[in-house]
Amino acid sequence: MRAYNFSAGPAILPEEVLKEAAAELVDYQGTGMSIMEMSHRGKEYSAIHDECIANIKELLNIPEGYSVLFMTGGASTQFPLIPMNLLGEGQTADYTDSGAWASKAIKEAKMLGNINVAADCGKEIPTRVPAVDELNLTDGAAYLHITSNETISGAQWKVFPEHECLIADMSSDILSRPLDVSKFGLIYAGSQKNLGPAGITLVIIKDELAERCPDTVPTIMRYKTHIANNSLYNTVPTFPVYMLCLVTRWLKALGGLEGMQKLNTEKAGKLYDCIDGTDFYTGTAVPEFRSNMNVTWRLANEDLEPVFIEEASKRNLKTLKGHRSVGGIRASIYNAFPEEGVDALISFMAAFEAKHS
Amino acid sequence: MRAYNFSAGPAILPEEVLKEAAAELVDYQGTGMSIMEMSHRGKEYSAIHDECIANIKELLNIPEGYSVLFMTGGASTQFPLIPMNLLGEGQTADYTDSGAWASKAIKEAKMLGNINVAADCGKEIPTRVPAVDELNLTDGAAYLHITSNETISGAQWKVFPEHECLIADMSSDILSRPLDVSKFGLIYAGSQKNLGPAGITLVIIKDELAERCPDTVPTIMRYKTHIANNSLYNTVPTFPVYMLCLVTRWLKALGGLEGMQKLNTEKAGKLYDCIDGTDFYTGTAVPEFRSNMNVTWRLANEDLEPVFIEEASKRNLKTLKGHRSVGGIRASIYNAFPEEGVDALISFMAAFEAKHS
Repeated sequence: MRAYNFSAGPAILPEEVLKEAAAELVDYQGTGMSIMEMSHRGKEYSAIHDECIANIKELLNIPEGYSVLFMTGGASTQFPLIPMNLLGEGQTADYTDSGAWASKAIKEAKMLGNINVAADCGKEIPTRVPAVDELNLTDGAAYLHITSNETISGAQWKVFPEHECLIADMSSDILSRPLDVSKFGLIYAGSQKNLGPAGITLVIIKDELAERCPDTVPTIMRYKTHIANNSLYNTVPTFPVYMLCLVTRWLKALGGLEGMQKLNTEKAGKLYDCIDGTDFYTGTAVPEFRSNMNVTWRLANEDLEPVFIEEASKRNLKTLKGHRSVGGIRASIYNAFPEEGVDALISFMAAFEAKHS
Repeated sequence: MRAYNFSAGPAILPEEVLKEAAAELVDYQGTGMSIMEMSHRGKEYSAIHDECIANIKELLNIPEGYSVLFMTGGASTQFPLIPMNLLGEGQTADYTDSGAWASKAIKEAKMLGNINVAADCGKEIPTRVPAVDELNLTDGAAYLHITSNETISGAQWKVFPEHECLIADMSSDILSRPLDVSKFGLIYAGSQKNLGPAGITLVIIKDELAERCPDTVPTIMRYKTHIANNSLYNTVPTFPVYMLCLVTRWLKALGGLEGMQKLNTEKAGKLYDCIDGTDFYTGTAVPEFRSNMNVTWRLANEDLEPVFIEEASKRNLKTLKGHRSVGGIRASIYNAFPEEGVDALISFMAAFEAKHS
């Protein structure tokens, strides 16, 4: 039986995608080789690489002048790469602090340049991200960095600030909703939540920004190197790109990002309604900033939380434990998480409440 | 039919390993999840992570005081990380130039510190690596860097130089032969040749070296961060580690690195004998430095090389084309390449010679 896997990442993948990958894992389309065994410059892998980029451009309606890159090292590696590439000497960059991930990005950037924290609600409970009108921006800042969705706290930007160079860590909500990419200078996302297995970092960058990078930055750490080489400067992790390609096909077949947003709003909406319908559960995030990807809540009696997690697990509702730094309950319901799993969780929550109140 | 895949990397994997991965790709051991969908901190993946490290320590007989790390970005990312972590201000590091990969490492290091090229045979034809007694070493150098096997030219170090801090890029021959790890300060290898699919970089480091790293280096770029966090500072590419774990089990079952060395010497020996037995073919590397992993040669009539490659491909002998920068023929016969594939190549070479001479 397939588990309802609420893991925050690495996370659930579409079952169809897994089955397709399994079926051709040993022999990719009659070649006598696994896709994993093929040169990253050979014709079979090249077709996948290029299709994956084309699908992402289509899904996000990415305008001319932007590149789609496959990099490595997760979002945590982008934290230093962004200032190394884009923050000139003497310049300041603005960052918003909205929680654990934003504050990690800030910490790394501070080691490399002048950073202004334009808004800080990183430690507020109930959790939230900053409102667009409370940002204290620097004139002439090199860029403004936000974290579009805080995976740990479950808060999400619903409206984005306007900025000449807006940069967003979208690790936990990329491809979950339509996006006007032209409003961004750079978007990045680790692959292991909404994209595929862990192992690549998707970067969408306005090409002209990459020219800012000083020559003192090591070749492989420059965005312009990856742009110039179509992400093939060195061996790209081919299997995660292949998996992402299958996921993009699946997304297109489901109606693209409009279709996905509708489904995600429905799934999250049901779960928040369930939480709001009783004092037994309390949502962790301020309602207007609630994430559609990571739904977080507490039990009025926190001592019951481990019991909740354990009983849920016995009913095939897996990995509901909140992040080790904050506790509580977290249901990560990314694109690939099926609606019937949300329904099963809601039924369980009602039964659990009836039993324990 | 399974192809005889001579790709230099990503490269052939053991068929048994691929079949095992395919069989449990959708449902890992009855959990209802793929291994790719599981948290990198959950119990199933943790068991694989720890077993993989233990197996590598066992296979290489790694002494106390060393850590086995899974990093990302390939060998090309290690090129800058090594001087960033280990080359103090005002210090010099020695590098040997033995070809394309060594010279890339040198180029990146020169951007970051004082580099002495202790020997340069990088452009010699027939190709080779430096002899141990021709190194022009710097007194008090921070380290000496070598490239244990040049994948493109097909030359390999058979005896290693002695140095207080010897660093080796072993991307194309790691785990192909027994090794005295205690003679090295740091060993690194991209995964896509002898280890598994592309996506992780294996690093074996003497822990005390990691302390050299200055605090100005971004957190994720410090070896000491990965040592302190058992390679789980951020999300590790879990699937490549899983595949590497299966490969290490396969290696252990085949008799470990002694067994592998015997097999590799036999495979390469046959092929070199075939090349040496006729003037129709000429080996590219100086015999005493010939690689057991990447066997390179030319045809006396170079115009016939494309014909050779094409006819071989029709006989299921795939990806024999030399690297685009040097041409010629290259047969990469890593650990997982079966002996019968070498035999098939040798038969084809004889038939091709008979037909075309």
